[in-house]
Order: sequence, then C-alpha cells, then structure tokens
Amino acid sequence: MKPPIGRDTKLCMSLSGRPGNAGSRLHNRLYELLELDYIYKSFSTTDLPAAIGGVRALGIRGCAISMPFKEAVIPLIDRLEPSAQAIESVNTIVNDDGVLVGHNTDYIAAQTLLAQRGIDPATPFLLRGSGGMARAVVAALRDSGFVDGTIVARNEEAGRRLAEEYGYQWCPDLPEQGASLLINVTPLGMEGPDSAALAFPESLIDTCTIAFDVVALPPETPFLRAARARGKTVISGAEVIVLQAIEQFVLYTGIRPSPAQVREAVLFAHGPATAEALALPAR
Amino acid sequence: MKPPIGRDTKLCMSLSGRPGNAGSRLHNRLYELLELDYIYKSFSTTDLPAAIGGVRALGIRGCAISMPFKEAVIPLIDRLEPSAQAIESVNTIVNDDGVLVGHNTDYIAAQTLLAQRGIDPATPFLLRGSGGMARAVVAALRDSGFVDGTIVARNEEAGRRLAEEYGYQWCPDLPEQGASLLINVTPLGMEGPDSAALAFPESLIDTCTIAFDVVALPPETPFLRAARARGKTVISGAEVIVLQAIEQFVLYTGIRPSPAQVREAVLFAHGPATAEALALPAR
Repeated sequence: MKPPIGRDTKLCMSLSGRPGNAGSRLHNRLYELLELDYIYKSFSTTDLPAAIGGVRALGIRGCAISMPFKEAVIPLIDRLEPSAQAIESVNTIVNDDGVLVGHNTDYIAAQTLLAQRGIDPATPFLLRGSGGMARAVVAALRDSGFVDGTIVARNEEAGRRLAEEYGYQWCPDLPEQGASLLINVTPLGMEGPDSAALAFPESLIDTCTIAFDVVALPPETPFLRAARARGKTVISGAEVIVLQAIEQFVLYTGIRPSPAQVREAVLFAHGPATAEALALPAR
Repeated sequence: MKPPIGRDTKLCMSLSGRPGNAGSRLHNRLYELLELDYIYKSFSTTDLPAAIGGVRALGIRGCAISMPFKEAVIPLIDRLEPSAQAIESVNTIVNDDGVLVGHNTDYIAAQTLLAQRGIDPATPFLLRGSGGMARAVVAALRDSGFVDGTIVARNEEAGRRLAEEYGYQWCPDLPEQGASLLINVTPLGMEGPDSAALAFPESLIDTCTIAFDVVALPPETPFLRAARARGKTVISGAEVIVLQAIEQFVLYTGIRPSPAQVREAVLFAHGPATAEALALPAR
C-alpha cells in the first residue's frame, strides 16, 4: 500500500501553458504500483520565475517543463545536464536539496530508441522539421554518431541553422531519392487538421528501412501505418512520449519501473492504443 | 469516488517549521469522504517569500501557516480578514485567483466554541498565558463581548501588553479567588516535561463553572480531567485544533463536512482519544 500523504511525501509536478492529465495519471499510477511515497500534479503559471522559486523553496522534487517554458526556464535554474545543454532546452528539473538541475528527457528518449533498435550510425537519414523537438532529435542523432543526414524544412532560416549547427545538410523540399532512416518531426499525421497527411510519400517509404515518427497522437500515424504495412522497422511518437516520461520518473525517484508496470501505467494514462504502440516486452 | 489527480485537482498545503502529518491526513480523508478533487500536503521551507510566491504562482488553493511563520507571512500577502487583523497573526492563506487573503482560524475556533457552549459574556475569566495562541483566545473573548477578565502571566511585559491591548487586567500569579471561566493557554499539562502539571489548582477548579484548555495533546489534560470529574463544562484543545482545521477546510473548499465526516477524519488523523474528546453530535 502507498502510505497516506504526509510531511515525507515527495511532490513532483509539471509546468506548461496548457497542462494535461496524462503525466499526472502515469506518474501517480507508477507510484501506486511501486508503493512510493510520491504524488504528481500538473500546474500552469503566468509567473514562471515565482513558480520555479516555489519549486525550490517548497522542496518540490521534480518538475516537468513543457511549452512555452523550455528555454525561458534556463536562467532560473542552477545548472544544465549534458542532455539539456546539447539543445539548450529543459523539459525536466530535478531538485536536489534546493539545487535545480535541468535535463532533457526528449533527447534522452530519442537517443535511447535509436540505440535500442540497433540502428547503425552510418545509416543516412532524412528528417522533416526544424522546431524544438526536431532540435532534440537532431542532437540525439549527432551524439549517437550519425554523420550523414539531411534536414528538410521549408523555413530556411531555422532549417539551415539546425543543419549547420549539428553538421548536416539542409534542403527546403523532400529529395526524390530517400534515405534508409526517415524521421518526421512535423505535425503531419497528428490528430487535428493534418491527421490524414502522410509525412513522407510512399515512394520514399518503399525504399527506407526504418520509419521514426515523433507524433504521439494518434499512436499510429499514416506514415507509421504505411511503413509497418511494408514490414519496416518503426519507432513511434508514443514510445518517445512514454520513454521521456519514464526517464523523468527515474530521475525523480531513482527507480526504473518494469516493462509490465510501464505498460499498466500507460494503459491507465494514455489508453490501449498507446500501450499497444509500445515496443515493450510483455513483462 | 475521488477523481484521479490531474490538472483540475486543487492543491492545499501547510507551511511550518516542523511539519506534521495530522493536517494532511485530516484534509485528505475529508476529500475522500466528500469526493472532492483536492489534495493536501505539508511542507517546510527556509525561504518564506519564495514559498509564498510559489503558492501564488502555482495557484495553490490554500496554505495553513504555523510556527514560526504566522507573523512573518503578513507582508507577503495581499490582505487580512478581520480574524487575522484582530491579532496580527495569520494561520490560513486563501488564494483567490492569485490574491492571497490571510485568516486566523484559531481565533475563529475559540470564538465559535465560546458561543457553542452558550457562555454568558458577563462571565468573569482567568486566562493563563501570553503567547501567540493566548492572543488569539483573548481577542476572541474581547470580540465575543467578555468584559471582565484577568490575564495571568509571569512575563510582565507580554502579559501587561496583552491585557492592556484588549482591556483586561493583568497579574503575575494566580489569584486566590478564581473565576467562573478558567482558560489555560500555557504548555502546562501538555505531552512532555509538563504533562503532569495541573494548569489551575483544585481549589480554583472547584469554584469555576467552565474549564477551557488549549492544550491539544493529550486530548484530556490533568486540568480538564479534574474539571470533568467535578461535572464542569469543558472546552478542550482537541476541539480547538480540529475546529480550526475544519474552518480552513471550509475556506478552501466552500463545503462544511458533517459531524460524522469530521469524526471519521479525526479518527484517521488524530486517533480515538481526540475523536472522543470532541463534543460532536453522533451524526
């Protein structure tokens, strides 16, 4: 049994412009399963410095940082771990006795998934996107040793800067010739107006070997569905979102939940479609 | 069923130098019984301004304030309700959309208990003590219309100031002649080195009609035990501590729990001795 909430209970939280419920549900379910004396709650704020001051002064153990606070939070904390330093973006704060340390578990999740699939860093990649999450994935690719890559982005300034910073090519439109590793970091295929859009044309999907989509909702985008139908190796946004949350959980608690515990918590927090999209061992 | 913790869950908390568990247990149990989407957790801090800034910036709904922060918090909040103004001491902050309002539910509890017992304000009283809680009780007596009172305190400066401020007498030692209403606001009879001490001698207890002890642990002090044995009307510190917490609960949630719900929550938070010491109707 999880103990009743009291003075020794550790609070973890999230700060975002539009807080959701999935993080609270995932973390709290894992606390229950692991009988940890923690609680988790999502917050928003209109005063980021005071909110971060409160995290420090109240001894709040950990704080997930989402849009639009990932860069603004940097001057308010004490130091950055390499994961956050690599992309100058913080999605996780760990409070060690009043010292606030910034991490980026999106970067960690991308790097872990590339390694888990055993993808050879010599594999050429084509990545669509140039926003904050694209930066996390590109940094993970670079730091995993990938040398041959092209960033495809309409926005020339952002696309060129991202490519040059990490040593890759940039081009404004999809080349006719694809690459073995295709990565989507745009909203194409996401629930909403772009839900029917295919992030890469079928001709490119045909010739790739690995399809990686960062879109987490739906757990299977048209891009991933097309890739899976062709027997390609797939990395889904559902995996990224769950893995980055689990890395936060490990940073806050020091405990790594089992795949079966993760599956149960994901089922509770995100529902069956996301749980099924995870490439988790059964237990 | 209480909903799972999420973005709409309201957090209430306490801030004190030495946080306990009873507040968390009492409030959380009532949230469960009333199926309210709230959680409650106790905190301490070494940076009161940042902690209060965090309460405001994170939209924390309510915050109980205990020693040593009850006066220091006043310049950090936006305004004082009369209960806190009366004694320049805040034990409760309510956060209404970023506006922090200070209350003092110790004062409210003392006033309520005097009224509940139907004590005639013409009754003369003898009150031992001159600290912060004595101030709350003396202000409650004054504002309930009690005119004839004596503050008994060894500390001449504090005792005299308290008596003069509220229009009562002061004397350094217990007078031989007692009063109908005897009130103890010292640690005499409290768990610890003074646990065997009788706050008033038996000769004074014999001649009183009402015995009021602010000591909450144990729920029945030697003073109250002696008074009860003589058939006197009794007001216990257990009642004060529970009632002031319930007033906080009402301020935070807008809901007044039933006596049966209070009894169940007190049983869970404080144990059977305190639950029995409450003069609560059975339901």
